[in-house]
Amino acid sequence: MSKTYVVTACNRGLGLEFARQLSARGDRVIATARDPESATGLAAHDVRVEPLDVSSPESVQRFADALAGEPVDVLINNAGVGVHSTPFESLDFDEMTEFFNINAVGTARVTRALLSALRAGAGKKIINITSRMGSIGDNTSGSAYSYRASKAALNMVTRSMALDLKPEGFVCLVLHPGWVQTDMGGGSAPTTTPESISGMLGVIDGAGSEANGEFFDFTGDRVPW
Amino acid sequence: MSKTYVVTACNRGLGLEFARQLSARGDRVIATARDPESATGLAAHDVRVEPLDVSSPESVQRFADALAGEPVDVLINNAGVGVHSTPFESLDFDEMTEFFNINAVGTARVTRALLSALRAGAGKKIINITSRMGSIGDNTSGSAYSYRASKAALNMVTRSMALDLKPEGFVCLVLHPGWVQTDMGGGSAPTTTPESISGMLGVIDGAGSEANGEFFDFTGDRVPW
Repeated sequence: MSKTYVVTACNRGLGLEFARQLSARGDRVIATARDPESATGLAAHDVRVEPLDVSSPESVQRFADALAGEPVDVLINNAGVGVHSTPFESLDFDEMTEFFNINAVGTARVTRALLSALRAGAGKKIINITSRMGSIGDNTSGSAYSYRASKAALNMVTRSMALDLKPEGFVCLVLHPGWVQTDMGGGSAPTTTPESISGMLGVIDGAGSEANGEFFDFTGDRVPW
Repeated sequence: MSKTYVVTACNRGLGLEFARQLSARGDRVIATARDPESATGLAAHDVRVEPLDVSSPESVQRFADALAGEPVDVLINNAGVGVHSTPFESLDFDEMTEFFNINAVGTARVTRALLSALRAGAGKKIINITSRMGSIGDNTSGSAYSYRASKAALNMVTRSMALDLKPEGFVCLVLHPGWVQTDMGGGSAPTTTPESISGMLGVIDGAGSEANGEFFDFTGDRVPW
């Protein structure tokens, strides 16, 4: 049966491909973009497009209001800011706060704003796109403070959310998309965008209560915290 | 041989006891407090007291300037804001950012400002006081978003710092003080403040390169990320 997915940041890259594959298989997609007019790639697909800037409380509230009580089955929090390799001495403290506000707070903000829509849906899945660079145990190369710290914080937020919402039957988890040939990943990345998305959709489709609060990559392998 | 320690937030609790035990065993202590005049407990001990608000870039720079090139052997980043048990629906996004700015960014800011003093010292240890509540893998009770996310971010920052500074011989690690009878821990906590601090000083004294980038509790046991 067709489900309703909200996917954030669908103007390009992973979000655009999520929207493409989901609509192609017959699911209903509400795709967000900071600037819908520039999200020209979405026009080719049968998706509803809404403006959303996850860093703005007002924008998030407007988006939640625009849903007008429509149930949402699956929320895919894909919006985020990308990696910068900053060594310790050139650490930018304002950037740290900015990345945290988008990647961790922004995700929590969207999720809370959509909670009544998610409660009304039957899917009850909240999927937060993180990165292996947010794995503390897997960090063997250092640097990238703003990105890594914001994703570790997102992982923790997801874990608490998973525990808090479990009694209502929600499954919340974090996914690493792989190193993907996107603007962020670059052309030498080993994984194509379609491969990453079809892999993640397989993990999302199959995720039951045992996956709640866990961290997987796009192949379904666990990633250490 | 006596070493020079900088310990932040020594007005009470863990910081005050760090200052007491370190000065009692003959080490030199530079103790900071947001308001030195109200840090009356420090007056009984042979420590130098300096004002420091880790959330203020100007205050951190003034503190670094006040050291005037004096070498520092060990920096103990103890300053932080405490736990609040906030369930998901009453999550306070401004509080999330505030806690991150103090617990994660504040610690990074102080450490970077003191880096030349630490490079001039022989001890080369950077000790960041975190909490088991910042362990994602150990989070089985949820909530406490602001505190947990800020400490998970601090753990990640410490891990990157440990890797970035390792070539210079630094040892950087995160310590969980235990559940301690402080204002934060409450009277029913199982561990006294002197027990926690003597335990942590044992871990700090014994920490060699194998401890770099790791997470221990006050008894020296590893804590999962």
